Amino acid sequence: MPDQPRVEFRTGPERYRHWRLVTDGPVATLTMDVDEQGGIVPGYELKLNSYDLGVDIELYDAVQRLRFEHPEVRAVVITSGKPKIFCAGANIRMLAASPHGWKVNFCKFTNETRNGIEDATAHSGQTYLAAVNGTASGGGYELALACEHIMLIDDRSSAVSLPELPLLGVLPGTGGLTRVSDKRHVRRDLADYFSTKAEGIGGKKAVQWRLVDEAVPRPRWDETVAERAAELAARSSRPAGAEGVALTELRKTRDDDVITYDHVAARMDRDACRVDISVKGPQTGPPAGLAEARNAQFWPLAVTRELDDLILDLRTNETELGTWVFRTEGDPATVLAYDELLLASKDDWFAHEVLHYLKRTLRRLDVTSRSLIAAIEPGSCFAGSLLELALAADRSFQLAGVFEDQDPDADPATITLGEANLGPLTMSNGLTRLQTRFWGDEAGYEAAAKRKNEPLEAEDAADLGLITFAPDDIDWDEEIRIATEERASFSPDALTGLEANYRFAGPETMETKIFGRLSAWQNWIFNRPNAAGPDGALRRFGTGQRAVFDRKRV
Amino acid sequence: MPDQPRVEFRTGPERYRHWRLVTDGPVATLTMDVDEQGGIVPGYELKLNSYDLGVDIELYDAVQRLRFEHPEVRAVVITSGKPKIFCAGANIRMLAASPHGWKVNFCKFTNETRNGIEDATAHSGQTYLAAVNGTASGGGYELALACEHIMLIDDRSSAVSLPELPLLGVLPGTGGLTRVSDKRHVRRDLADYFSTKAEGIGGKKAVQWRLVDEAVPRPRWDETVAERAAELAARSSRPAGAEGVALTELRKTRDDDVITYDHVAARMDRDACRVDISVKGPQTGPPAGLAEARNAQFWPLAVTRELDDLILDLRTNETELGTWVFRTEGDPATVLAYDELLLASKDDWFAHEVLHYLKRTLRRLDVTSRSLIAAIEPGSCFAGSLLELALAADRSFQLAGVFEDQDPDADPATITLGEANLGPLTMSNGLTRLQTRFWGDEAGYEAAAKRKNEPLEAEDAADLGLITFAPDDIDWDEEIRIATEERASFSPDALTGLEANYRFAGPETMETKIFGRLSAWQNWIFNRPNAAGPDGALRRFGTGQRAVFDRKRV
Repeated sequence: MPDQPRVEFRTGPERYRHWRLVTDGPVATLTMDVDEQGGIVPGYELKLNSYDLGVDIELYDAVQRLRFEHPEVRAVVITSGKPKIFCAGANIRMLAASPHGWKVNFCKFTNETRNGIEDATAHSGQTYLAAVNGTASGGGYELALACEHIMLIDDRSSAVSLPELPLLGVLPGTGGLTRVSDKRHVRRDLADYFSTKAEGIGGKKAVQWRLVDEAVPRPRWDETVAERAAELAARSSRPAGAEGVALTELRKTRDDDVITYDHVAARMDRDACRVDISVKGPQTGPPAGLAEARNAQFWPLAVTRELDDLILDLRTNETELGTWVFRTEGDPATVLAYDELLLASKDDWFAHEVLHYLKRTLRRLDVTSRSLIAAIEPGSCFAGSLLELALAADRSFQLAGVFEDQDPDADPATITLGEANLGPLTMSNGLTRLQTRFWGDEAGYEAAAKRKNEPLEAEDAADLGLITFAPDDIDWDEEIRIATEERASFSPDALTGLEANYRFAGPETMETKIFGRLSAWQNWIFNRPNAAGPDGALRRFGTGQRAVFDRKRV
Repeated sequence: MPDQPRVEFRTGPERYRHWRLVTDGPVATLTMDVDEQGGIVPGYELKLNSYDLGVDIELYDAVQRLRFEHPEVRAVVITSGKPKIFCAGANIRMLAASPHGWKVNFCKFTNETRNGIEDATAHSGQTYLAAVNGTASGGGYELALACEHIMLIDDRSSAVSLPELPLLGVLPGTGGLTRVSDKRHVRRDLADYFSTKAEGIGGKKAVQWRLVDEAVPRPRWDETVAERAAELAARSSRPAGAEGVALTELRKTRDDDVITYDHVAARMDRDACRVDISVKGPQTGPPAGLAEARNAQFWPLAVTRELDDLILDLRTNETELGTWVFRTEGDPATVLAYDELLLASKDDWFAHEVLHYLKRTLRRLDVTSRSLIAAIEPGSCFAGSLLELALAADRSFQLAGVFEDQDPDADPATITLGEANLGPLTMSNGLTRLQTRFWGDEAGYEAAAKRKNEPLEAEDAADLGLITFAPDDIDWDEEIRIATEERASFSPDALTGLEANYRFAGPETMETKIFGRLSAWQNWIFNRPNAAGPDGALRRFGTGQRAVFDRKRV
């Protein structure tokens, strides 16, 4: 694979090459019709509705827009625009030619998009229906698995399959195994058999084994899909008569050193392998009511969109910058005021969407394989929703006092817990970041939560266990320098593993299983000669030659 | 590393080179005093109480014997016989020189032994106390973490540490991260900091951060250790005045093709990459009461010990034999009668120990990276405890009818659920194999459980979802041949990942996190050039040269 061009995640329906988004009252249809010539990097054709990162960027965009721009949509049908094939999954030539890091990052993003589909179904009254009108293999079936209801056309040739193991010597990369066992409750021995049959399973057997929900003959297909979509739409709690909020194009400038948006900026230090990220709090107080807030400039939505884009950009394009240092700038009280407006209007569809979007964006941060550090200085606004950045960090530093030689009269840095930290912004493990932090320490949690809405200076914050270290201004620069330099000196792989384990204490969910367990196994397999070596299955696929395996079981 | 010699897991205290086991009434002391020259393979010295597989085989043996041979022991002190050093963890030169598979298998076994220590504490009234009388690094601290109570000598030099990340570019390999966060509830940012400090943390800070339970100055050390051990012993429910059961040497013959014990035999087919394992049911009915059963010849104990040894032997010595096919032979009713004797006497310490040992052995099977197939034929005794072998399998085949041309008058093959399948033999996920099988299908579970004690022929068993396939005698050989040949044609790595995911549906525990998540990340890291390459951290350790890292974050 040639040097990857810089990947850009901003897009919109008018620019889609691979999907068509059509809404018809309460039902939207997302039709996958991949442009074979539209690969995001050169070197492969996207045959048979196979996909690469570019295809998935459009899908992610569509799923987002449906939530914000289409409050009227209550059911989303995902189907194929190609005859006899629903989706062949991730493009194999792309996978075979990609460096390890690209494969892993690609799978992570596709996983997040599938989780986003489930999140829309669970929390947004937009229920996804997979109308599998042809064969769905591998990632194609995994896309269907992310939907609430799976219909398979019953035509004696269409089937669902996970052929990764028999054909490619890898695992399904987008949650397939976990969803088969833990979501659809396919019995483990049947799941095992299914995952070894490259040709897949269709018809009644696919229903009996719970691989799909129904198999529908072609003559009744269109009408049954419409019927089901209407049924799913009827269950929805989406509002009547609401107007959508257009996700206008993000303003972004980017060069090799700096990325800037309206509220977020990132400065890249390639020598230090680090990015300094600063997030601005709102410049003005919140509007009196949500009526005036329904637009993409509304600070909580705007800043979340910028953070989302930045995380994706840095993750994909700046893989050598292993440490991200977060700072904030602004008035903590104003951040809390915005949070309050959102939380007080939780039953409003738009406020609800903004909160869930922030939740998803912070989860993206949690599973980002970068060391995260928060630097809490005078003038910062780590309060409520923005405090989550510090709670997501692997370590946080809060200045004790002020920078005496810069601004001795400044107010000391504070952090403030708000209602936003106590419930809505759950991690993948189902707990808030505060609950995860105090997992197994109920008293510590209670002591911290009691101080809600109280600005906490460094000493208090440290005593309460809300920050890691509280250096004074004499030690400040040195401590942060040492922490980031040290981070840059460690094995990036070992850091990724360490962080993936420590960030998720406590309970497990399907989402943590996918990111923690399944992805780790897949990454291991991706890295083994049996898959990725010159004679491995992934590389030999389609050559007519069989893979050569080292038969040792590990 | 030279070709590994065949590893033998049978040992006994009189042969230990690295441990001393001394009992003094209710308190046993296990003193680690590793023989530097006693490595299990040539090429390294076991300095500073570092360990290799051979050291851990002795530890496992001691933990087992304490449960069976020492009913009087209620607390076990693990300490070091060397000055100033408790244990330096796994030997680095051994790790650096070992092939990938050896490292992974070694970590799996050490994990199982640590889990066994926790199992003794939780279920057997033998509470482990780590008397850390010198520095405990890496696997040394992980050994302490497996104990219920950790005492650290407070002498200004002794510390606990997890230096794997900063020194070796890998993760702690024996559950360290999971136990730090999920058992000891060390706050995630402190855990992160701790895991980057090669020199570790001692004294009061180690207590404050929950890394240890107490720091005790040297002058009060011996007395305080004795005091704590007595306190822990006082909480125990172990019986008074019981006599131990000697774990006499297993009778085993082994050559390149066959391994045999009294009740278990394995035939290795190297061309087919497969092992055929047969387990004999009891030859005679159970004794009238447990009094006559208290010896190592008691069938449930004997067969469990043999299975345990066989699993370890095949796992370690026969890595290319990727599929294990289980058969049983005997009278199902007699198996159930033995189960009943054990279950009716659950309050008896010995019956209790046998059941928990069988539980642990079956868990070992669950985490074994081999495809498991059960072949249920006429004359077999897949009932109760032995049915667990079929429930542990990735697939099971039960003959419908009989082998017409061999023995047309035989009774057809049956399986029988017993009480042993409904509770005591939990997997690592905390569920029974039957619950895991029907995870999310309560009705299916109830329908099966209702048929307890009823011999089920193939059709019934298939309808109830208790087996995978029910071929008749015309298809039997062919189906099993295809299943095993197909298995041998797949990527061993992908199979390992597939099985590791499908075997554990549902809830997660510390144990499943260790085997599923932590081990998968560690295996990935072990396989990366940043650790295991010629310039990687693991290989460069001790050479005076720094590792060279590919800085890309994946």
